[in-house]
Amino acid sequence: MKKIYLDYSAATPMRPEVYEAMRPFFSDKFYNPSAIYLLAKDVRDQLEAARRSVAGLLGARPAEIIFTAGATEANNLAVQGIGRQFPDGEMLVSSIEHESVAAPAGLFGARQIPVDSHGVIILNKLSNLINNKTVLVSVIMASNELGTIQPLADIAKIISDVRRQRQNKGNKLPIYLHSDAAQAGNYFDLHTSRLGVDLLSLNGGKIYGPKQSGALYVKAGVKLQPLIVGGGQEFGLRAGTENVAAIIGLAKALELAQARRQEESQRLAGLRKTFEKRLTGKFENVIVNGGKRRAPHISSLTFPGQDNERLLMQLDERGIMCAAGSACSASSQEPSAVLQAIGLSKELAQSTLRFSFGAATSPADIDAVVSALEAILINR
Amino acid sequence: MKKIYLDYSAATPMRPEVYEAMRPFFSDKFYNPSAIYLLAKDVRDQLEAARRSVAGLLGARPAEIIFTAGATEANNLAVQGIGRQFPDGEMLVSSIEHESVAAPAGLFGARQIPVDSHGVIILNKLSNLINNKTVLVSVIMASNELGTIQPLADIAKIISDVRRQRQNKGNKLPIYLHSDAAQAGNYFDLHTSRLGVDLLSLNGGKIYGPKQSGALYVKAGVKLQPLIVGGGQEFGLRAGTENVAAIIGLAKALELAQARRQEESQRLAGLRKTFEKRLTGKFENVIVNGGKRRAPHISSLTFPGQDNERLLMQLDERGIMCAAGSACSASSQEPSAVLQAIGLSKELAQSTLRFSFGAATSPADIDAVVSALEAILINR
Repeated sequence: MKKIYLDYSAATPMRPEVYEAMRPFFSDKFYNPSAIYLLAKDVRDQLEAARRSVAGLLGARPAEIIFTAGATEANNLAVQGIGRQFPDGEMLVSSIEHESVAAPAGLFGARQIPVDSHGVIILNKLSNLINNKTVLVSVIMASNELGTIQPLADIAKIISDVRRQRQNKGNKLPIYLHSDAAQAGNYFDLHTSRLGVDLLSLNGGKIYGPKQSGALYVKAGVKLQPLIVGGGQEFGLRAGTENVAAIIGLAKALELAQARRQEESQRLAGLRKTFEKRLTGKFENVIVNGGKRRAPHISSLTFPGQDNERLLMQLDERGIMCAAGSACSASSQEPSAVLQAIGLSKELAQSTLRFSFGAATSPADIDAVVSALEAILINR
Repeated sequence: MKKIYLDYSAATPMRPEVYEAMRPFFSDKFYNPSAIYLLAKDVRDQLEAARRSVAGLLGARPAEIIFTAGATEANNLAVQGIGRQFPDGEMLVSSIEHESVAAPAGLFGARQIPVDSHGVIILNKLSNLINNKTVLVSVIMASNELGTIQPLADIAKIISDVRRQRQNKGNKLPIYLHSDAAQAGNYFDLHTSRLGVDLLSLNGGKIYGPKQSGALYVKAGVKLQPLIVGGGQEFGLRAGTENVAAIIGLAKALELAQARRQEESQRLAGLRKTFEKRLTGKFENVIVNGGKRRAPHISSLTFPGQDNERLLMQLDERGIMCAAGSACSASSQEPSAVLQAIGLSKELAQSTLRFSFGAATSPADIDAVVSALEAILINR
């Protein structure tokens, strides 16, 4: 049976070029980059070249890039790092954040910014929520469950206005904008000054790079406390012998992803359009979640009256892999908080599947999935 | 020029068997282990088999093994995790800890347990330092700079006595023993109940496994706060999509290291004996640090009157790689805190080199290093 993988939002296979770039650092170039002999310095040089490459793609300076073990750590470093640095500050996070933002933000009593029925931040509600103590606003660039793209530039403008007002009033508390771009690397411009962000999380494991590779962009001047200390690596913000192979792999993966993003966005948006058109044509009651401005690879579909776990298993039996929610929360039995935030009832949330497309997804795969869903839903 | 690597305490190359074990998880088996289709469950099964393997080698239960990104994170999780769980508790750490224990312990105002001139904990001083509020004692199993082995069983006995006294007095504060075993995996028994530890940190990058692989053993019943939250992985103690390849690699590396540890300990102890005997025979004033009970792979030598950085570079020119202190602190210009803790002056600390042996070290390498040191020190 041919396997059809439609869960690229959960994990991506590594590109062969990424693997080849990493390989020498497991064996010949295994040296600790902090050692001071020449062969170790060569490893250090290559690590720093990777940092410059990532920085370049983000329009950032190398010293603004902190390599982490994945986006979850990057998100925690951003949120907990700011939370501890400014213990009297308050946080605002969107109601559709990934748990790796929502959970650490919860430790600091963050309040939620509501979203509309498509999952888009309601800008005037954000404005009203910001007060004199707000130090961090965190909004996911493209929702991992819905694909919804946030108006980051508009959010950045609101924050920049607040910053100006504070200066006039002599309020010295900074206010920062963080965005989790874990799902964005393959499809969007990540230029940090165009985006207007102060902190940005990247995830290698979702852009055909290695799992547990990631980075946090920290704009020069932004102060935050490290999570992991002792050793001074990553400008004092993340201790531990650098995962050289993973860093090299992340840089390579990001370079390839960004080079192909426009072409691949178009291709996947086309496939998704066909997919959703055919399904909504066949099944009148199917709901497409997330509105029009969505990352091109995610299709969140609600099948009223159906149980998503059961559907998942029936698809799996036919060789088709997709998801009921984020993989991180797959083990919990709770209906998706993100789907509830856009107004779906618990029942509808538990009737929702996420299909996410990627490099190997073809028109034939779309045909096969539509046929499988027909077989399951009609001829059961 | 033949390269002679004598810095195995800083980094080890990956064994080919480890690399082969990891490889499928970069490509064919890239699935997110939290996903619920069959191919992802197969990845989950293999990840859990790796956990059982590590647990078995430690005489632990699988649920007591938390996979981390390296020993620095494991040490931080142990120290910060206990520190936050018991905010009124106090900590004691040896004065020769690696920075990844010393730095987080410093955040909680830990006091230092003094060591003797060989770097061994002074047991009655430890006893005197323990008070009603002591919640954590952390002692490195084998010093990364000296090789010195600590009397963990004696320390565990002291702690177990304190535990009993507290029970009698109705003091409900627990007291835990943590040990950083980053340098120990290749050479020592890691059976946690024989060692008497409650928490134990492992490092894949020092046992011919992947960099940034590691684990923390957390004895059942020990409560600690996670560093990285949001996702629920690793029993809620370490969020983020699991680094499957690294976990598989760590388990394989530990299995091989433990299978070969007795033979390899003997072999390296023999090589080191020759090395130190020849050097102290040639240079009367050379000091061998760390006493008799040392991990077999580390030789810390003080060359009075010499500058260690200069020696390092002269050796590097001859293709010989060694270290002036821990690699993690190589970039700082401060003389080693560990060497000062055993009573060396700053000058002597800055005249000290660490040679660390490993899998490829041969008698011919020892000859070559001794000759090189002769050439540098006598014929300069």
